[in-house]
Amino acid sequence: MSATDINVHEHVSRCHHYTSWMSRWKPGARERLQAAALELYATRGFEQTTTAEIAEAVGLTERTFFRHFADKREVLFFGQEQFLRAFLDGVDAAPADASPLEFIAAAIESATSFFPDERRPYSRLRQSVIDRNPALQERELHKLAGLATNVADALRARGVTEPAATLAAESGATVFGIAFAQWIRDGEQRSLATIASEVLRELQNLTRSAR
Amino acid sequence: MSATDINVHEHVSRCHHYTSWMSRWKPGARERLQAAALELYATRGFEQTTTAEIAEAVGLTERTFFRHFADKREVLFFGQEQFLRAFLDGVDAAPADASPLEFIAAAIESATSFFPDERRPYSRLRQSVIDRNPALQERELHKLAGLATNVADALRARGVTEPAATLAAESGATVFGIAFAQWIRDGEQRSLATIASEVLRELQNLTRSAR
Repeated sequence: MSATDINVHEHVSRCHHYTSWMSRWKPGARERLQAAALELYATRGFEQTTTAEIAEAVGLTERTFFRHFADKREVLFFGQEQFLRAFLDGVDAAPADASPLEFIAAAIESATSFFPDERRPYSRLRQSVIDRNPALQERELHKLAGLATNVADALRARGVTEPAATLAAESGATVFGIAFAQWIRDGEQRSLATIASEVLRELQNLTRSAR
Repeated sequence: MSATDINVHEHVSRCHHYTSWMSRWKPGARERLQAAALELYATRGFEQTTTAEIAEAVGLTERTFFRHFADKREVLFFGQEQFLRAFLDGVDAAPADASPLEFIAAAIESATSFFPDERRPYSRLRQSVIDRNPALQERELHKLAGLATNVADALRARGVTEPAATLAAESGATVFGIAFAQWIRDGEQRSLATIASEVLRELQNLTRSAR
């Protein structure tokens, strides 16, 4: 999942897109802090931004910042629990006789609803910040690995055996990651759900073509 | 890939196994430092061990330690370039008409030669140290992600298109990871190559069972 080719300044100039999306979504202090933090990370650099500056940018105190986020890194990872929940809801909602890959297709479809097209500018900007900071990249990978572990648990709870459960969960994370990277590419117009189902089909072709 | 259930003390008592393997392999200062570091990390904890203590344990100076390793974390990740090379050699050696999954099977087979059964006690101990330290886990994930990126590059160089190249490379890393976790499980006797080819077969079954 790489977006190093993204022109940050171009995205910053489109900030009103994600800001308006975020404020329509739920215009609380948390969302204003999140939008301000992302803009500062993108323009000034993650390391160069302080929590005091983020709070000040939206007229709040640093104390308020820390009521919402443990540290400035957490601003970028907030909401991942809901993202995980969307995956697991998909597994839970699949029919009892689903194959491992059908469970995964259901999980991915559910998770894509977490990223409506309105959110694309925000996701692009977030990724460009993460791509420029190795420590943030490591954290992102750690979160994605945790996602696969949790999905594998959910698959086992629905009767999928090992190693199929782990293989399916990891493959699902891979498919989602590839689709997401494509979704935030400059000029991409298709929805995340459309891209994800194409990548999933490609995974099936891949393994079918083997001897 | 988890080995938190491993009894560290049990492994430490078997230290002569990996130490003798390492010294037969190439009995230089680097290998002695590596064996001593791993033993200290396992018994005392990674955070609690200093580079001076590692050097002292094998009668060398801290200066010598830093001639071989950038820091105490690098001791655990040294050799990963050769590991990556083994994967890439497998891709390079596969026939021109190989399918994406056949390239991956060749890469995995080549990489498993990097882990002969003699190395199993060392690999178990290393994993137990990494599993107990979140920062080391993040580093490990980062290295594995880099592996998949490099293998995808090699597949594209051999004519595999996207997203098949990235899907195949990521699936290969997943298969290897699952096989490796099984290989270091207590009581496991099969070779890594045997386990890996079974997991690869399971991946093919997984997608075949889908509608």
